[in-house]
Amino acid sequence: MDVHEQVIALCKAARAAARPLAAASTDTKNGCLRDAAARLRAQRAPLVEVNRGDVRRGREAGLSAALLDRLTLTEARIDAMATGLEEIAQLPDPVGETMARWRRPNGLEIAQVRIPLGVVGIIYESRPNVTADAAALCLKAGNAVVLKGGSEALDTNAAIAAVLSKAADHAGLPAAAIRLIPTADRAAVQTLLKQSAFIDVIIPRGGESLIRAITESSTIPVIQHYAGVCHTYVDEHADVAMAERICFNAKVQRPGVCNAMENLLVHAAMAPTFLPAMLRRFHEAGVDLRGCERTRAIVADLKPATDEDWHTEYLDLILAVKVVASLDEAIAFINTYGTGHSDAIVTQHYAHARRFQAEVDSAAVYVNASTRFTDGYEFGFGAEVGISTNRLHARGPMGLRELTTYKYVISGDGQIRE
Amino acid sequence: MDVHEQVIALCKAARAAARPLAAASTDTKNGCLRDAAARLRAQRAPLVEVNRGDVRRGREAGLSAALLDRLTLTEARIDAMATGLEEIAQLPDPVGETMARWRRPNGLEIAQVRIPLGVVGIIYESRPNVTADAAALCLKAGNAVVLKGGSEALDTNAAIAAVLSKAADHAGLPAAAIRLIPTADRAAVQTLLKQSAFIDVIIPRGGESLIRAITESSTIPVIQHYAGVCHTYVDEHADVAMAERICFNAKVQRPGVCNAMENLLVHAAMAPTFLPAMLRRFHEAGVDLRGCERTRAIVADLKPATDEDWHTEYLDLILAVKVVASLDEAIAFINTYGTGHSDAIVTQHYAHARRFQAEVDSAAVYVNASTRFTDGYEFGFGAEVGISTNRLHARGPMGLRELTTYKYVISGDGQIRE
Repeated sequence: MDVHEQVIALCKAARAAARPLAAASTDTKNGCLRDAAARLRAQRAPLVEVNRGDVRRGREAGLSAALLDRLTLTEARIDAMATGLEEIAQLPDPVGETMARWRRPNGLEIAQVRIPLGVVGIIYESRPNVTADAAALCLKAGNAVVLKGGSEALDTNAAIAAVLSKAADHAGLPAAAIRLIPTADRAAVQTLLKQSAFIDVIIPRGGESLIRAITESSTIPVIQHYAGVCHTYVDEHADVAMAERICFNAKVQRPGVCNAMENLLVHAAMAPTFLPAMLRRFHEAGVDLRGCERTRAIVADLKPATDEDWHTEYLDLILAVKVVASLDEAIAFINTYGTGHSDAIVTQHYAHARRFQAEVDSAAVYVNASTRFTDGYEFGFGAEVGISTNRLHARGPMGLRELTTYKYVISGDGQIRE
Repeated sequence: MDVHEQVIALCKAARAAARPLAAASTDTKNGCLRDAAARLRAQRAPLVEVNRGDVRRGREAGLSAALLDRLTLTEARIDAMATGLEEIAQLPDPVGETMARWRRPNGLEIAQVRIPLGVVGIIYESRPNVTADAAALCLKAGNAVVLKGGSEALDTNAAIAAVLSKAADHAGLPAAAIRLIPTADRAAVQTLLKQSAFIDVIIPRGGESLIRAITESSTIPVIQHYAGVCHTYVDEHADVAMAERICFNAKVQRPGVCNAMENLLVHAAMAPTFLPAMLRRFHEAGVDLRGCERTRAIVADLKPATDEDWHTEYLDLILAVKVVASLDEAIAFINTYGTGHSDAIVTQHYAHARRFQAEVDSAAVYVNASTRFTDGYEFGFGAEVGISTNRLHARGPMGLRELTTYKYVISGDGQIRE
């Protein structure tokens, strides 16, 4: 079999596995996840050994130190992966949940019931823990999964997927419900993206260029999670101490993630009192600052912010700062330069809070809190498969419920249509 | 401007119109719809006159009598269109509905709130009433709409869209929120399908080939409503009189629609008593019958059903009949030959009913009722934009709620992430 045939065979097998998996009980699925965790722990040593080969080849291929670190499995990281599976086992099962139920005048009872999506394709880069996390979330939501990881982690990913697949088999679930495409050949992705007969949705996890390339080629619906260019707007009616605390947290607590602040907007009336201390604090924390003209008139020696700055997801200790004349300008700016991810206002003004929440068109809109809370765990969903910036199907953190669809189950006693 | 530039300009204008429309009050939107209804009624005569031109050109172009009938506007049909708009005005507004709201341990309050999708592209064939219906549903759900109707109805559709657009303007809403692509040039559709920067979702209304072609070309998510190959399974534990009533209704009451029955499955133990009378009744109603071998052994002079028959959405007084050995065979058959639209079991057996509802993987699964109920009105949603056979975003009847997405509105008092 060539790569093309191999991918099709694998997708077909996943489709066939999806139906028995969809019917599996919560206990069976949870047992499988706990067993997979135990197997991962039991095989720490051989997994680390397999990973060493990937890391050695990565080093020889000249991967950066950061990429090599993300690629490396340690016993502690395998433990964390196993704990992740156990946590997913503890989450409520979305499958079978009745979302709504009503009775029609003719006596028909209509229930809207959650069911699995079917087969999920996950295309991801780097970290091998995604193999375990993504497969476990799909399995818990009753979906078969076809995984395509980064080529640099091929052997590691294959070893992890094999452990999960074996646990599925041991639990009486189809082993083909969890399958990794076992090749570094790029043609495999192109074939995968055309299997709309077997795959219901593609979820890419990686940088913007990966997601764009996948969306262009795919005949299967793609759930995107594009960049987070997140804003905090400090209103003229903000509590200054609260604003400083929230802004500092949004930028500095973990700058490398999509819900970190990239652009800070400050009302002109607030800027002279707020900006000097705030920017000093950022500077002391090692944040590289860029400002608009009005910001630079207040705080000297700041680099000028360019139009490109406002559009950039730095994912780093870099911040662009702008003084705005009004709430309207802040909202318009966010709706222009933001990516619809997470944006916050800090204000004590009731009507301003309401207008910001109504008019900012983002997946998560905050009043008086850090944008860093846009996260499956922080929302109370548990583990997540990503933060969707799609408008269709799922928006924001994608937990187990977002990996399901629904059907209408209708109970009658002989009703016919007149 | 050439067609390409014209379509882009129109999509861009719709995008700009979407934001003020999303913020419009329910009263404003309802007022606009009622005004549009009044304007349609007031302009019955000129609309009929414009339509006459389309019909004449259609006749000259050799359109079939059926197509000419679908194309024709009468004063009564314009009245029905206007009444449709008034009914949409009476439906509850989905925008602003809180779908869920909860408080986190740190005091953050998270609300999941319905908002409009943004800009909807509707591509449709034939009936000009779709222009009014689809535009009104989009407007009520706060979405701007770009319409592309069939070329044979171009002038009629343009005249109807102009009336709605004028009503929007009169209500203080952006006129560009309702726009028809004013050309029969097929290149316009190709351009439209690439405007993912301006259009959030494409909803095609038409035959399977239209939907497939659109899905292939579109870089915008497409909500499909493919064919309905719907089944009724008469279980060995069925109430015979109820089964006969339901099957007759599902096939004969309105055969040309997607929720009508196309394949009838009958348990072998029931077939000898059930089939002769049932098929006689179908025959008397003018239904053209095809049967499997076992059916033909019971009822003589039946055409043999081919594999193609089981796959065909007849949309006509034609029915394929199969005798099955078990509930398992019925479920497997439906999941193989069905299109995931609407399927029914007739049974008095509790466990059989439960298994059928759990295992048949269709948007609407019925026990003891006609499949004909899969419909926005019959579900209680009011008017619908179609019946989705997608698994993502919306499944089954697509009413106003299915034309929305959501955002998370989060209220805090200074929370930061530790």
